[in-house]
Amino acid sequence: MKIIIVGGTGTIGSAVVNALSSRHDIITVGHERGEVQVDIANPASISKMYQQIGKFDALIATTGKVHFGALPDLTAEHYAIGLQSKLMGQVNLVLMGLQYINDGGSFTLTSGILSQDPIRYGSSAAMVNGAIDSFVISAAIEMPRRVRINAVSPTVLTESLDKYEPYFYGFESVPANRVALAYSKSVEGAQTGQIYQVW
Amino acid sequence: MKIIIVGGTGTIGSAVVNALSSRHDIITVGHERGEVQVDIANPASISKMYQQIGKFDALIATTGKVHFGALPDLTAEHYAIGLQSKLMGQVNLVLMGLQYINDGGSFTLTSGILSQDPIRYGSSAAMVNGAIDSFVISAAIEMPRRVRINAVSPTVLTESLDKYEPYFYGFESVPANRVALAYSKSVEGAQTGQIYQVW
Repeated sequence: MKIIIVGGTGTIGSAVVNALSSRHDIITVGHERGEVQVDIANPASISKMYQQIGKFDALIATTGKVHFGALPDLTAEHYAIGLQSKLMGQVNLVLMGLQYINDGGSFTLTSGILSQDPIRYGSSAAMVNGAIDSFVISAAIEMPRRVRINAVSPTVLTESLDKYEPYFYGFESVPANRVALAYSKSVEGAQTGQIYQVW
Repeated sequence: MKIIIVGGTGTIGSAVVNALSSRHDIITVGHERGEVQVDIANPASISKMYQQIGKFDALIATTGKVHFGALPDLTAEHYAIGLQSKLMGQVNLVLMGLQYINDGGSFTLTSGILSQDPIRYGSSAAMVNGAIDSFVISAAIEMPRRVRINAVSPTVLTESLDKYEPYFYGFESVPANRVALAYSKSVEGAQTGQIYQVW
């Protein structure tokens, strides 16, 4: 399969590349690195990415910004960051990718545990993750041409604990290579409308 | 209690006014009707509403627009309608209301069944409802001064079947006065971070 991995240069994305590259033709897309560059918060940049890459069988998105901050300090502008990047960035990859994806192809997005198991400073991440999960459940029933869509919802990565542990005390972390299995299941399996929780 | 009901002139809002008005001081807020007017998609209008009303004990929001349409026809602009109105409109009512709400007060937002039980044309509603539910779960753990926050997630209203039945075949509708009970529980009870599903 020809598989696009947007965020393929990040911690999760690299593990997904490792998991899939022996069996598939992988195109690694990053913000500044990778074979192709994209700014997912900018629809024109997504359009250009698809023009460069052309037809494909699977798109995996493992990227997107959200703002972390104490709820009483947050304004609509802080929430807009996550809505524009992690949420609509991934949704636009789907909407615009429908023109390029082959019959029976798949989209796999990334949400996260905070929608159900919240932490301090995480209300924007929670909002965005909940939105992605519900979008995926709903979009799955309207996909044309047997195209599938799933999301992977990871907990905190073991590789990220040195940076984020104080925000996640008590959470059991998972290594990125375990999270990568869920993307493999989504792309190489046959399910749709699933939220693969890895926690 | 002094209770603000944004959307209090709508089908659910009117039922909530009926349920609470014998016991409380209600301020009905509508887009064009009601005692006070607000456009929840416009933060400046929300600010003006709070300046007019001042301190309060509970805010209930039963309003917000979303766009319905077939997924392959939707663009980011269609999703932006729901994100700006039903999602960020309600979230801004919370963020800006924190300056005015009394200690131990409550916010009650409205999401909906489509985040978990999707229908054709409903991917924007699903996205927004999922975002609201997760925002509420997360915001609850960061509320200052014992302020509480919950959401009510109704299925299709019996009163709306004449308009929407073809989209909801097989869904069991609920009358607005049954949905209103969930708002009463949220405002007059003591729970926080709850999604009251009425379906």
